[in-house]
Amino acid sequence: MSATAEPIARLVLALSKLPGIGPKSAQRLAYHLLMTPDADIEELADSLLSLKRSLALCSRCFNVAESDPCNICADDRRDASILCVVERPADIPPVERTGRFRGYYHVLHGCLNPARGIGPDDLRIPQLLPRVRGTEVREVILATNPTVEGEATAMYVRQVISACGVRVTRLARGLPFGSDIEYADDITLGQAIESRQGF
Amino acid sequence: MSATAEPIARLVLALSKLPGIGPKSAQRLAYHLLMTPDADIEELADSLLSLKRSLALCSRCFNVAESDPCNICADDRRDASILCVVERPADIPPVERTGRFRGYYHVLHGCLNPARGIGPDDLRIPQLLPRVRGTEVREVILATNPTVEGEATAMYVRQVISACGVRVTRLARGLPFGSDIEYADDITLGQAIESRQGF
Repeated sequence: MSATAEPIARLVLALSKLPGIGPKSAQRLAYHLLMTPDADIEELADSLLSLKRSLALCSRCFNVAESDPCNICADDRRDASILCVVERPADIPPVERTGRFRGYYHVLHGCLNPARGIGPDDLRIPQLLPRVRGTEVREVILATNPTVEGEATAMYVRQVISACGVRVTRLARGLPFGSDIEYADDITLGQAIESRQGF
Repeated sequence: MSATAEPIARLVLALSKLPGIGPKSAQRLAYHLLMTPDADIEELADSLLSLKRSLALCSRCFNVAESDPCNICADDRRDASILCVVERPADIPPVERTGRFRGYYHVLHGCLNPARGIGPDDLRIPQLLPRVRGTEVREVILATNPTVEGEATAMYVRQVISACGVRVTRLARGLPFGSDIEYADDITLGQAIESRQGF
């Protein structure tokens, strides 16, 4: 006989499957939800259930969206000469928030990871080529994450599209804004020195 | 026109109302849930909805439970001479896990907080007296949190039950197991010195 009622234990289990939520946070959340107004709980449950029901992949850029083509692809005021390649749909909102990019996107849905058996055909890499070859696109920004896998993926994609005659760029590496050189890690500081800019 | 699809934005909003989940974690969770199998999402939504539907307060100890009296109060093999007063239902499972307590509980549902207008009648303090006065109870452990509010609540409860002729104790204060004196905070270390034990 456990001290935790079954409906709580069940919710704790379901919550602790989420990333970054361990058994202790899950328990804290569950007990918080016990004291939460019913309407808020129903809104949360309902938004969970309607999440995938009302979303699909955009057949052009592979972003998750309510419509196909997605809002961004459907917007013909954007700059068709530049394409930003990202790993995940979650990478698009932060790029949009910068206000510095007005082109279109291409979502790979992951990065290459031979150790986990993830190769080019598991990503949306084959679908990138027809978007670049013989189109208006003049530049492809490889905005994969600054990680080993992200780098490897960017290098692979660069090779794939190298014959298309487009400019291939990647996001700048360096010290993040507001950081402290004293606490910068070696790799970041090394890249910041390597890529130093005229001033 | 936002870069985030409405169903995602809606879930992010609902998730970010949870304690300890800011807008960034909520966004990360939402995009994770997009890639989660439907069955797992349905289980999470369903366990949210059934949480309060299948739970109620035990009319004896005020723990949240599937039955009234709760499992613990219904267990007559426990020690009726000792009562453990806790702030929240969430405090019961950790006490149970220690295996060091075999009495019954009383859940206050919060602690005194004059700044927020929470007085004794907002808690289950009035309901404690009849459980202690003229009953089998010989000892009341005040297991409120070691915080200013928890302390104040414990002191108030001690005063309320002082005329009942029961022993009133509280959880020991001192250095947590596995901690490091070098990094202990002043108050904890002070209490550990104050409450030093024969060895």
